[in-house]
Amino acid sequence: MMNFDLPKIPARPEKSREYGLTMVMDKGLSLQETANMIDAGGEYIDLVKLGFGTSLITKNLKEKVKLYQQAGIKVYVGGTCFEAFIVRGMFDDYLRYVSGLGLDTAEVSDGTMEMKHDDKLGYIEALSKDFTVLSEVGSKIEGREITNAQWVGMMDSELKAGAWKVIAEARESGNIGIYQKNGSVNLELVEDIKNAIKLESILWEAPQKSQQTWFIKNFGANVNLGNIATGEVISLETLRLGLRGDTLLQFI
Amino acid sequence: MMNFDLPKIPARPEKSREYGLTMVMDKGLSLQETANMIDAGGEYIDLVKLGFGTSLITKNLKEKVKLYQQAGIKVYVGGTCFEAFIVRGMFDDYLRYVSGLGLDTAEVSDGTMEMKHDDKLGYIEALSKDFTVLSEVGSKIEGREITNAQWVGMMDSELKAGAWKVIAEARESGNIGIYQKNGSVNLELVEDIKNAIKLESILWEAPQKSQQTWFIKNFGANVNLGNIATGEVISLETLRLGLRGDTLLQFI
Amino acid sequence: MMNFDLPKIPARPEKSREYGLTMVMDKGLSLQETANMIDAGGEYIDLVKLGFGTSLITKNLKEKVKLYQQAGIKVYVGGTCFEAFIVRGMFDDYLRYVSGLGLDTAEVSDGTMEMKHDDKLGYIEALSKDFTVLSEVGSKIEGREITNAQWVGMMDSELKAGAWKVIAEARESGNIGIYQKNGSVNLELVEDIKNAIKLESILWEAPQKSQQTWFIKNFGANVNLGNIATGEVISLETLRLGLRGDTLLQFI
Repeated sequence: MMNFDLPKIPARPEKSREYGLTMVMDKGLSLQETANMIDAGGEYIDLVKLGFGTSLITKNLKEKVKLYQQAGIKVYVGGTCFEAFIVRGMFDDYLRYVSGLGLDTAEVSDGTMEMKHDDKLGYIEALSKDFTVLSEVGSKIEGREITNAQWVGMMDSELKAGAWKVIAEARESGNIGIYQKNGSVNLELVEDIKNAIKLESILWEAPQKSQQTWFIKNFGANVNLGNIATGEVISLETLRLGLRGDTLLQFI
Repeated sequence: MMNFDLPKIPARPEKSREYGLTMVMDKGLSLQETANMIDAGGEYIDLVKLGFGTSLITKNLKEKVKLYQQAGIKVYVGGTCFEAFIVRGMFDDYLRYVSGLGLDTAEVSDGTMEMKHDDKLGYIEALSKDFTVLSEVGSKIEGREITNAQWVGMMDSELKAGAWKVIAEARESGNIGIYQKNGSVNLELVEDIKNAIKLESILWEAPQKSQQTWFIKNFGANVNLGNIATGEVISLETLRLGLRGDTLLQFI
Repeated sequence: MMNFDLPKIPARPEKSREYGLTMVMDKGLSLQETANMIDAGGEYIDLVKLGFGTSLITKNLKEKVKLYQQAGIKVYVGGTCFEAFIVRGMFDDYLRYVSGLGLDTAEVSDGTMEMKHDDKLGYIEALSKDFTVLSEVGSKIEGREITNAQWVGMMDSELKAGAWKVIAEARESGNIGIYQKNGSVNLELVEDIKNAIKLESILWEAPQKSQQTWFIKNFGANVNLGNIATGEVISLETLRLGLRGDTLLQFI
């Protein structure tokens, strides 16, 4: 796998894996661009989220889904797409949509709309019968504060309802995500989550390099990270392996 | 067009259209990258600007122009390229250049050089006989302030001189563009423009997501937007259609 | 080379050249993406750095190296990759690695690890027998201050030890690179370097457009610039040629 066998490189589990996950956000790649990304870094990608509602207007969508699945990558439509159906009262149509695409993975979220948490748990439970479910905690709406205890409680109950992993929302404004307005980690919240929830079950959204570095330095090479940009897959893998300046001395 | 027929999605006019325009900035894509972009999002792109002087040093330029035109996209060389000819006193050469490329669209601007406004109107008038003309108002030069009344007056006279659309320059520094230094909208200026000029005739440069969101929320799904990055075409279309967090509840 | 012969465009030396260099950072392009970049702007690229340790985990690496070399581009593995070997006491393995890849160019740096400067000079001397060597001055580690006199002294001795060019590190935090925290140029340091070292021998890392503009305006169209993003090759060339707003009037 490596072009030269260096010692003291952190071990990474083989795909498909339960831990050490990298989730990439695809905001509308063409088929050729999808093939390019898989060619360069497919082995480092576990999950691809078709970001927000892009799947609804992307051409050749079924072919794209196949490209990902053939590369051993779980692909699913973003939580905002789920909410676009739910806010219209169309859960059955959502099921038809994702089944018709041949998807086996789904995301449940309530980041933009109001949803009773019991309803959210119901969706997770229903979907988890046929799909690998990721559920997202954290709001995209400024002003909708969630206490640390609520974060932990929601994550715990969503895992119990059948979610495979819970996603910690990255929204970078106010007290509604795991980062401060300036992009730095909300330390208390992240610690509270880590102390209560099994680390293997959490997928941290970490779009910025400084955020990825923080999680790798503090939680190890195999921490689950998400919302990685399509061009940053190889870069993130070097961070995990101690092959980038920020982590070069981390595993020596 | 959509992969699933959701209700309450704003209607978009068919191409070629007079309103609801998306203008993309191409800073030097290869032919393959051009084909990729068209494949993924060509139906959502109305105009492609070959940014600043990139057209002068891009390889396979005629083939690229053809790719865009065959996809029903108007393509033209950026205003700074126009100015590079004018500042050298070479308007006739500019005409030879763009005609030789088979272009049918042109941009007139004076963002970087000093130009008498009567001369600018003259260029618009001359070009509009053979080309679809976009003219840009707003300066790239810090310190060259333009009052709101001057903005409106120039836009009005340039449309009367034959411009198809007027472009509102995005320059994000001081009082010389439609945004503040921090990227937020210059509300008074934008309101003054909107109150005086037909909205269909204005193309707002809006390179940042927060700017695109502001215009869509305030002026509707079909507001004309420009300087969109090549990788953001699908994302912008989801914003317009209420399929992204920021606008999910906008059209419900 | 230009699609229209404009006067008053700064002359650029032909490749392979000693001055006017553009160095691009490749963070893990696929073969197709590599071909795309070469197709669009290969003639404007002198050097490609396979950023940090990406070369160690990039697929089809030898084919990629060949694509670059066939296009007349010097390609080499980043300084952090060099350090990943050195910090493990594996200089001989480093030699085997880069020789096995068919590389003829190498970078020596100590940006992340502690290295005696005499040792660094030894590596430069040893490598310069078989490779074109770039050596980098400046630290990636916050708190490790280097005085201006030390910068100049190290650059001078590294050139004397056999480096073809010395790279001025861009690290944008504290007093450890050529830029301030906000990205603006550290004027005193850059002047001190310029007054002591032949300009042709310095390659300035300048990832941001404002930094590229500063160097072109102050040191001329043919200043050596590095860490250019893969999508910014054509844009940088227009800046050099006075075909972008920021430099349009620079060479008139």
